[in-house]
Amino acid sequence: MVSNIKAIVFDVYGTLFDVHSIVKKCEEEFGDKGQEVSLIWRQKQVEYSFLRELMGRYQPFSKITFDALKYAVSSVGIQPKEEQLLQLMAEYQHLTPYKEVETVLSSLKGKQLAVFSNGSRDMLEPLLNNSGLQSYFSSILSVDDRKAFKPTPTSYTAVLEELQVERKEVLFLSSNGWDISGAKSFGFQTAWVNRKGSPREQLDLQPDIEIEDLSELVNLL
Amino acid sequence: MVSNIKAIVFDVYGTLFDVHSIVKKCEEEFGDKGQEVSLIWRQKQVEYSFLRELMGRYQPFSKITFDALKYAVSSVGIQPKEEQLLQLMAEYQHLTPYKEVETVLSSLKGKQLAVFSNGSRDMLEPLLNNSGLQSYFSSILSVDDRKAFKPTPTSYTAVLEELQVERKEVLFLSSNGWDISGAKSFGFQTAWVNRKGSPREQLDLQPDIEIEDLSELVNLL
Repeated sequence: MVSNIKAIVFDVYGTLFDVHSIVKKCEEEFGDKGQEVSLIWRQKQVEYSFLRELMGRYQPFSKITFDALKYAVSSVGIQPKEEQLLQLMAEYQHLTPYKEVETVLSSLKGKQLAVFSNGSRDMLEPLLNNSGLQSYFSSILSVDDRKAFKPTPTSYTAVLEELQVERKEVLFLSSNGWDISGAKSFGFQTAWVNRKGSPREQLDLQPDIEIEDLSELVNLL
Repeated sequence: MVSNIKAIVFDVYGTLFDVHSIVKKCEEEFGDKGQEVSLIWRQKQVEYSFLRELMGRYQPFSKITFDALKYAVSSVGIQPKEEQLLQLMAEYQHLTPYKEVETVLSSLKGKQLAVFSNGSRDMLEPLLNNSGLQSYFSSILSVDDRKAFKPTPTSYTAVLEELQVERKEVLFLSSNGWDISGAKSFGFQTAWVNRKGSPREQLDLQPDIEIEDLSELVNLL
């Protein structure tokens, strides 16, 4: 269970927004290979953030996302065209929020809510503006301010400094098991939004709570 | 092209040995889900090494490999049994070398050859002994001596100190694109063993040479 929460902090991609909602656009561009492109794109996007952090070669998530898309398109045997890639990148500013998100955020009004993402501001701000969700959050936090990706401890310190809270006063929500592991390791209280019914990560770090989607959050606080 | 090489250093899993050669054992245990278990096992094994490094929670690769197997079995809806898991783990000491490996190593006799792996010694030494390949190498190098996984710069320094060579005097070979990126970033000369005809990683780091399997190596030196 969770208790004494002063700030509720949400991951963005996969947690508030469905990153596979761009699969339709990928199918328009690449036909029956669209779904595969969409999946590899997301997988490589995350992998490249890990690898660049490990190698000490940080680049903003917008560049990483573009590079991951180039890889994904090549991997299905298609020669990537710049114009096509830019059109698909633009979709990242128009992702679809999961259906329960706005209702849940509305019901949490009065609490300190923030987002904290690997995304750079050139991706996050247009997305939150376009979706109409921006007004629910007091802070938009990006790892880009410190140039250190999640799940490094350095990355999560941004939340403490920006929101003026202690580690154990933060409830952090993410659908990404690796992000929940990193946040738990850092000392946040954590809720894993396990939308797909995945098994627990085997990293010796358990989430404080596990929920199927954000609607369960309202009863927990 | 590569030149002025004083040491030839090989990655192990996927480079000298086929990690999916255990798919048969997985199929014996899990029937038509065996192949999926084998693939997820390898994917999670690599991911967990990245994540533990990023979180500052190093554990030896033997533990990570066991944890990844537990995840993989759970992910196909099977309750993992300890005995079954230990049997599968034992297979990691009996991986099959790729068919050209021994011929190539024989032809390189007289050169300084080493392996450098994320694997811990409790995995590497039995594997190399059982396969009969151990005698070809002057050094068995494991990241476990420094407790830092590839592709961190710290991990690759082991090669310099143990073999008493400069960065640019090392030819490093791996089939893993992320390992080649890390080695190139560190300053090794690199040969990507692209066994599956994969596209290049989009990490702004290109291998010095790309080969389909190790047999091309003989003509390059």
